[in-house]
Amino acid sequence: MPGLIAGPALGIHPATPPTQEDLDRWRVDDYEARPRRLARLRERMAAEGVDAYFGVRRENTRYVSGFVLGEGEEKMAGVSGQFLVSADEVVVLADSRYTLQARDDCPAARVEPVYNDFAERWPALLSSLAPVGGGGGVRRVAMEAGFVSHAMWERLARGDPGVTLVAAEGWIEQLRQVKEPAEVERIAAACAVADEALQRLLPAIRPGVAEHDLALQLEWEMRTNGAEALAFDVACLAGDRAALPHGSPGSRVVRDGEVLLFDFGAQVAGYRSDMTRTLFVGEPSQRDLDVYQLVLDAQEAAFAALSEAVEAGEHPTNRSIDAAAREVIATGGHGEHFGHGLGHGIGLATHESPSLGRLAPEAPLPSPTVFSVEPGIYLDDVTGVRIEDLVVCDPDARRLERLTRFTREVTVVG
Amino acid sequence: MPGLIAGPALGIHPATPPTQEDLDRWRVDDYEARPRRLARLRERMAAEGVDAYFGVRRENTRYVSGFVLGEGEEKMAGVSGQFLVSADEVVVLADSRYTLQARDDCPAARVEPVYNDFAERWPALLSSLAPVGGGGGVRRVAMEAGFVSHAMWERLARGDPGVTLVAAEGWIEQLRQVKEPAEVERIAAACAVADEALQRLLPAIRPGVAEHDLALQLEWEMRTNGAEALAFDVACLAGDRAALPHGSPGSRVVRDGEVLLFDFGAQVAGYRSDMTRTLFVGEPSQRDLDVYQLVLDAQEAAFAALSEAVEAGEHPTNRSIDAAAREVIATGGHGEHFGHGLGHGIGLATHESPSLGRLAPEAPLPSPTVFSVEPGIYLDDVTGVRIEDLVVCDPDARRLERLTRFTREVTVVG
Repeated sequence: MPGLIAGPALGIHPATPPTQEDLDRWRVDDYEARPRRLARLRERMAAEGVDAYFGVRRENTRYVSGFVLGEGEEKMAGVSGQFLVSADEVVVLADSRYTLQARDDCPAARVEPVYNDFAERWPALLSSLAPVGGGGGVRRVAMEAGFVSHAMWERLARGDPGVTLVAAEGWIEQLRQVKEPAEVERIAAACAVADEALQRLLPAIRPGVAEHDLALQLEWEMRTNGAEALAFDVACLAGDRAALPHGSPGSRVVRDGEVLLFDFGAQVAGYRSDMTRTLFVGEPSQRDLDVYQLVLDAQEAAFAALSEAVEAGEHPTNRSIDAAAREVIATGGHGEHFGHGLGHGIGLATHESPSLGRLAPEAPLPSPTVFSVEPGIYLDDVTGVRIEDLVVCDPDARRLERLTRFTREVTVVG
Repeated sequence: MPGLIAGPALGIHPATPPTQEDLDRWRVDDYEARPRRLARLRERMAAEGVDAYFGVRRENTRYVSGFVLGEGEEKMAGVSGQFLVSADEVVVLADSRYTLQARDDCPAARVEPVYNDFAERWPALLSSLAPVGGGGGVRRVAMEAGFVSHAMWERLARGDPGVTLVAAEGWIEQLRQVKEPAEVERIAAACAVADEALQRLLPAIRPGVAEHDLALQLEWEMRTNGAEALAFDVACLAGDRAALPHGSPGSRVVRDGEVLLFDFGAQVAGYRSDMTRTLFVGEPSQRDLDVYQLVLDAQEAAFAALSEAVEAGEHPTNRSIDAAAREVIATGGHGEHFGHGLGHGIGLATHESPSLGRLAPEAPLPSPTVFSVEPGIYLDDVTGVRIEDLVVCDPDARRLERLTRFTREVTVVG
């Protein structure tokens, strides 16, 4: 069936890298969206009976406050960027290096200058908050238990023994699954930057070039054409190395007649893309072409299942979409060569909810949401093929679009 | 005084980026050093009465096992790269994506394939270990409490209630302070890559160029000339923005008559460099020149204090070196404009022990060790100057060398 996924004519994929106007507009969009995000978080807090929320994860900080930390910057930032949410405030912690930035990034938040004295100041900080539960002060604090270190938890628990710390996992992450229009725009822009970069790289691909040189050039194409950062390190794997679902580019050179797999993504205004293309260098072997066609058919089967549900206004489950693709690969005789899940949500983080796989707890997909569809077949020591596109899926609005627009046709280079 | 720091003629600073032979040799050096590192860790474990050590920090994994994770890769890697040390083994956890790499990176370790079942398999894993304390099994496990999340700690505590989890902070970090010759070589190589990159960038600096374009080009120079990665995102700050001790390059263009501050570093075979140079674009103002000279004098005072101690075979304290530089700046009337510490250790992490500052607990510097010496003066909304060099300091061998070799003379560009 043709379905709703029709290709490059659907309009939300910008043809050019983001402009300063785009960046300014998204900043305003975020500013206006934040009270709605916080209202939903406070609903959850009230339902769980907590008075305040203490968060440390960089994506969550940005989502609720606007404070921007680079990937890995948490390690140098100490408590800067960690935050508290009360009934009527967001409080962002910032040591002297970060106070100016915090005031600029978070016009709606209270910026609290702190340094090594955080645990000592914890009781006074909590006392300054209006509890979500009302009444005489903060009694129970939700903590991002998957990200707060054990040492910090213990220090804060001792810092104010009258307060109960409650392990919270996934509260903000669950909100982040549902994407606002300005979030989808940025993911689409990041897809456009990645699409364009691979297009620009094609003339450089030829037998004898090393994986790491192609990876570096692809990175350069993204970062000089609209990406503020990479979504993750570029994977570029040639021939038998494409059979490694995880693998880093090395000094291995591409040879004639081999596949060449690129897995990469860009970041635009905080939001990320993720795509995989498997190209053919020189004359493809029939074996590789057959594997490629099977992976493509599997991806089409997933799109068709999504399309059918979305046209009916139904929310398909994560597992049902995985199963649609997996069945095609199993029928083709390669069931045991597709070891990973079909896809993952993406946004401020490269991997986020929802998770589309056999092992994920079965659940209807949120709406609207953005995720990858990335079937693969890996023949150890022989060859590997993966094709990965991002889609935005919104059954409530009868909308399904492929955000990755690079061709999925067999592409011969070199 | 001339001191031991004599400049570029001392020989350990390679003139060219590392070769494949260098990389192969360092791999062997690490392999041979690991039993000595582990022996020291086990001494500490025995002294603290623990039978096993559970680690999660990527730098520590690499230090004791050889397993390499990229910066930030922990977030996608799950438990892969986490490790246990017993009386006679290192056990490295790896899910299916990482098992091949773990076997290759860690020839001396037991690679334990795990996935989502880690907490369930924890008791059996502990039972498979020979306890450091001898006797009938593992009773007490040291945990990297500053890095293990509260949620994981709780899961493992429930997973085997018969075992006591003991918070360990800084045990391996303390070992990492003392640098082996092959570690110093790699830091020196990373310094050489950074020095060379700034030299190559100089012709591109002129009024009207944006900070972020210069930052990107400097990154490119490093990554195409020997750096496997950056040590951290390049800072490039012009004019009044140089007064931000932490600041990210933006669209601000460099103007004639301003300072231009670069803070950057390379990574070579896992080891990092970190340097800052403040250049002058066009004719320098007398104000900026005066500030520059004071910062340079402060750095020289720190070197002189180090040199005096090292020549006498004495171990200076971290605070005494900070004080030597700080006194010069205070005497020059800018005491309140030097807000941060004088320096920090560096190695597998950009910031590690020892810490040289007023606030750090006073302690003699370890030997041999590598750290930064980076005084700065920051005049809010006006200008800023910082000069940062790495030194290797080994009083026991009467050795003190500056690893950063880029000139500290007033450098006018544009």
